[in-house]
Amino acid sequence: MSNDLPLSKENILDAAEQVLRRFGPDKTSVVDVAKVLKVSHGTLYRHFSSKSALREAVTERWLQYNISEPLKNISEHFDGNAKEQLRLWMDTLIRSKRTYAVDDAEMFAMYAAVTLEAVDMITLHVDQLIGQIAGIIEKGIQSKEYRVVEPVVTARAIFNATSRYHHPAHAIEWQSATIDQDFASVWDLILSGICL
Amino acid sequence: MSNDLPLSKENILDAAEQVLRRFGPDKTSVVDVAKVLKVSHGTLYRHFSSKSALREAVTERWLQYNISEPLKNISEHFDGNAKEQLRLWMDTLIRSKRTYAVDDAEMFAMYAAVTLEAVDMITLHVDQLIGQIAGIIEKGIQSKEYRVVEPVVTARAIFNATSRYHHPAHAIEWQSATIDQDFASVWDLILSGICL
Repeated sequence: MSNDLPLSKENILDAAEQVLRRFGPDKTSVVDVAKVLKVSHGTLYRHFSSKSALREAVTERWLQYNISEPLKNISEHFDGNAKEQLRLWMDTLIRSKRTYAVDDAEMFAMYAAVTLEAVDMITLHVDQLIGQIAGIIEKGIQSKEYRVVEPVVTARAIFNATSRYHHPAHAIEWQSATIDQDFASVWDLILSGICL
Repeated sequence: MSNDLPLSKENILDAAEQVLRRFGPDKTSVVDVAKVLKVSHGTLYRHFSSKSALREAVTERWLQYNISEPLKNISEHFDGNAKEQLRLWMDTLIRSKRTYAVDDAEMFAMYAAVTLEAVDMITLHVDQLIGQIAGIIEKGIQSKEYRVVEPVVTARAIFNATSRYHHPAHAIEWQSATIDQDFASVWDLILSGICL
């Protein structure tokens, strides 16, 4: 049975996400998604040339919606000083990752796998987040909370220095009883480095 | 054919390492190692109760010999200030991991896998390394290079803040063209945090 409605990228990604959640990333093929959409696999291959392109696109949308956008909101709208804002931004990143690792385990596992493969997409995602941190640092320099630094360089250093607490490869360590205490010490070290 | 010589732990680990390198961690069983040693597998099971216990013991020795001991030497014997000593210690850790990831890929892959399973052994290994950093920090506090901090807490924070550059889960990122520059920015941030 064929479907004559025009396929939007969103329709395809909705169907792909649904199939990926049901069968898991390893067992989902472009053909499975074509079946759900009731289109030929030729039609779908015109949008996504491979299983990995499909996984990457679904992960990209998932990251945008679940991670980047809520954090962008914190980086742009916040009543308080830059020190509190940066902490809230980082706590939200860390808490979101931990929550998804448990409550949305299939998508999180796919994201962890895609992180190792789709280097360009992940680099863009990380650069977006670093841009958000840089905005908060600029604000903190203006308010004389932070030393005068190059905002993007320092933002990248902060992001990388906290990898253990948000990079999916460390998810197993997030179950440790001392993880919050460990993060607090890293955060103190970072604040000593950036605050006036 | 049986072997009547008494089995030392070192003999077993030598044989196990040899078999693990030849067949890979997934395909190596306690029985394979028993064959190489020409002993019954019952004899070997008295020393190592499972495949994973064997992998863990081989990895533990490999880490001790290749990572902990060379770093211990730097933490105990160094002509220079504490700032240079800490940088040399960290550079050596990072360079060793990167070198083994490429030049001793089988053992490195096993270590990466064991890191996810043998939490207690890895915790002990990491605590040894943190103790070494703490020693350097104490020296730097005495020489008035570093602020007065709690050495072990700050040492742990420095180790965790540099995870991206030495934790095996990040090995794929070590191939990035910007990895050294990224590390340099994290290091600058850490130094700003600890130096007077």
